[in-house]
Amino acid sequence: MAKSPEEEHPQKAFGWAARDTSGILSPFRFSRRENADDDVTIKVLYCGVCHSDVHSVKNEWGFTNYPIVPGHEIVGVVTKAGKNVEKFKVGDRVGVGVIVGSCMKCETCDQDLENYCPRTIFTYNSLDHDRTKTYGGYSDMIVVHHRYVLRFPDNLALDAGAPLLCAGITVYSPMKYYGMTEPGKHLGVAGLGGLGHVAVKIGKAFGLKVTVISSSPGKEDEAVKRLGADSFLLSSDPAKLKAAMGTMDYIIDTVSAVHSLAPLIGLLKLNGKLVTVGLPDKPLELPIFPLVLGRKLVGGSDIGGMKETQEMLDFCAKHNITSDIELIRMDYINTAMERIAKCDVRYRFVIDVGNSLTQ
Amino acid sequence: MAKSPEEEHPQKAFGWAARDTSGILSPFRFSRRENADDDVTIKVLYCGVCHSDVHSVKNEWGFTNYPIVPGHEIVGVVTKAGKNVEKFKVGDRVGVGVIVGSCMKCETCDQDLENYCPRTIFTYNSLDHDRTKTYGGYSDMIVVHHRYVLRFPDNLALDAGAPLLCAGITVYSPMKYYGMTEPGKHLGVAGLGGLGHVAVKIGKAFGLKVTVISSSPGKEDEAVKRLGADSFLLSSDPAKLKAAMGTMDYIIDTVSAVHSLAPLIGLLKLNGKLVTVGLPDKPLELPIFPLVLGRKLVGGSDIGGMKETQEMLDFCAKHNITSDIELIRMDYINTAMERIAKCDVRYRFVIDVGNSLTQ
Repeated sequence: MAKSPEEEHPQKAFGWAARDTSGILSPFRFSRRENADDDVTIKVLYCGVCHSDVHSVKNEWGFTNYPIVPGHEIVGVVTKAGKNVEKFKVGDRVGVGVIVGSCMKCETCDQDLENYCPRTIFTYNSLDHDRTKTYGGYSDMIVVHHRYVLRFPDNLALDAGAPLLCAGITVYSPMKYYGMTEPGKHLGVAGLGGLGHVAVKIGKAFGLKVTVISSSPGKEDEAVKRLGADSFLLSSDPAKLKAAMGTMDYIIDTVSAVHSLAPLIGLLKLNGKLVTVGLPDKPLELPIFPLVLGRKLVGGSDIGGMKETQEMLDFCAKHNITSDIELIRMDYINTAMERIAKCDVRYRFVIDVGNSLTQ
Repeated sequence: MAKSPEEEHPQKAFGWAARDTSGILSPFRFSRRENADDDVTIKVLYCGVCHSDVHSVKNEWGFTNYPIVPGHEIVGVVTKAGKNVEKFKVGDRVGVGVIVGSCMKCETCDQDLENYCPRTIFTYNSLDHDRTKTYGGYSDMIVVHHRYVLRFPDNLALDAGAPLLCAGITVYSPMKYYGMTEPGKHLGVAGLGGLGHVAVKIGKAFGLKVTVISSSPGKEDEAVKRLGADSFLLSSDPAKLKAAMGTMDYIIDTVSAVHSLAPLIGLLKLNGKLVTVGLPDKPLELPIFPLVLGRKLVGGSDIGGMKETQEMLDFCAKHNITSDIELIRMDYINTAMERIAKCDVRYRFVIDVGNSLTQ
């Protein structure tokens, strides 16, 4: 018989888990593996609450394996380091993002694209190499192979920096890969949530002109005055949309709801690039004429590899980029998730795990 | 009152035109402008019959202005050259493709992308700078600004080379722009018609492994034995399609009918590129998950600029690439168009204008 979550590993662990599709989280005792030679054990201090966590606890994507401890924007300090670990020592500030493992042998891993390895192990709700389940960062500690642990730069706030581990790399990686970083070019950011607001900041740091594209008029002040966007385009206003046609070089589309690509493609100039990082659960309509006649492209991108995630953290530290967060206690998580489902957060909840996770 | 087509210009011209949505072509007297200082006058010898011609004569795209003389794969010899023309002299073999003009002043024209200039003048069914209508290559002669005239390499057959001026550049340009030319990589060519069969040949000349993707089992022998493709994938066979998932680096999609992009995206490897050059008249369904999870892109491309069209002709001459054609007389054109509508041509009709257009 399979061992219980509390008994399967030698190290005791404690967190909050959802047990069923209600998605309600509550205290949960489980265990973590012993720190092996290549492992780092981390005392969790902060963990961001990603929209994926909300989808996962309610099994909205259909592959949740309960109980589930979410959390993949993890920041903490090293408490143990295995003998093969050279990059980290006890006391170091570190981060863990969306993945904690991959095959480490394939061509994709060799290219530092562990995030696209067919055997990626996700930080929670995944099966580890030993076939036990992975549990995420809504917990007191975690054991991770050092390859998937990031150095957290000294001047990057631990709480507000945590969301960069998912939201930050998700928008940074496509900007690098698709060549959307030429200073002076015009970037549109569709959707102003956890991903979008970081995309605005990273876009500005690359020297781009940044326009936020949103259907919420209330976000104009937020976008321009608070986040530093150059302008705001109300996508629900046909006249304003029409006037902006053909003015953008790149668009990062962070919208996960099913939406129309045609207006976004129309906003692009010749050779414009639209990259979607959201995950609508149904196909979107793709108009071919404007794609062909304007030599435009629609591409996708999914988080980033470990090397690039480190590069992104260092870039954000250099440019003083963090997420705008609302710091919450662990026992606020169920309310926080309700608020996320209603888009009532600016722009990321971060759980103060170190100070509020008590048994 | 506007002058008649026969009277509006000083040079007499003769061709075949469609007068109404029946699309039936018949002899037509019209006129061409005097050869100006920047112009080249060309005696037309051959003209390819593009699928666009069939759409246009029947007004299937909704913007046909009758009478229409189609033809934008034109090959002939220079009979006059204006005093500012340095590239061409009387007797030179030349070609004219899909466009005969653009603004020559915008950033796009400056980048040798006249094909994407907002003021492109198409070779037929378009308005020229003087607001008179353009007439295409199903005619005895044509007058074109030298910028839009191509040198036709000596060793390139005039008749079988003609379709390169549209079909050739339409597939060559995206391969260059999207970086689909790395030797040894695997190119899929979806659709084996006028564009697709040239894409196979150009792909092989770039050193790619080429697989033809088609729903017609009868095309397997054609693809492999006649055209030199490395393999054939019957897209209507789910088992074969499944076995080929994730094996291709690039796909050129030449299919103009409304079709599913999902299987093509599935055939691509990580970082794979799908470029569509067909023009389906309705949006296609774009599945976002595979695009994001495989960092794939879907792009468009529309013919090519004049500099690149010349480069393509020279490349094809060097690699002995021409179209597979069926040479026809002018008075066979109505039958030929019926056969094109039924995909009954391997792979391009070319009209022997020089020997069969008689008044």
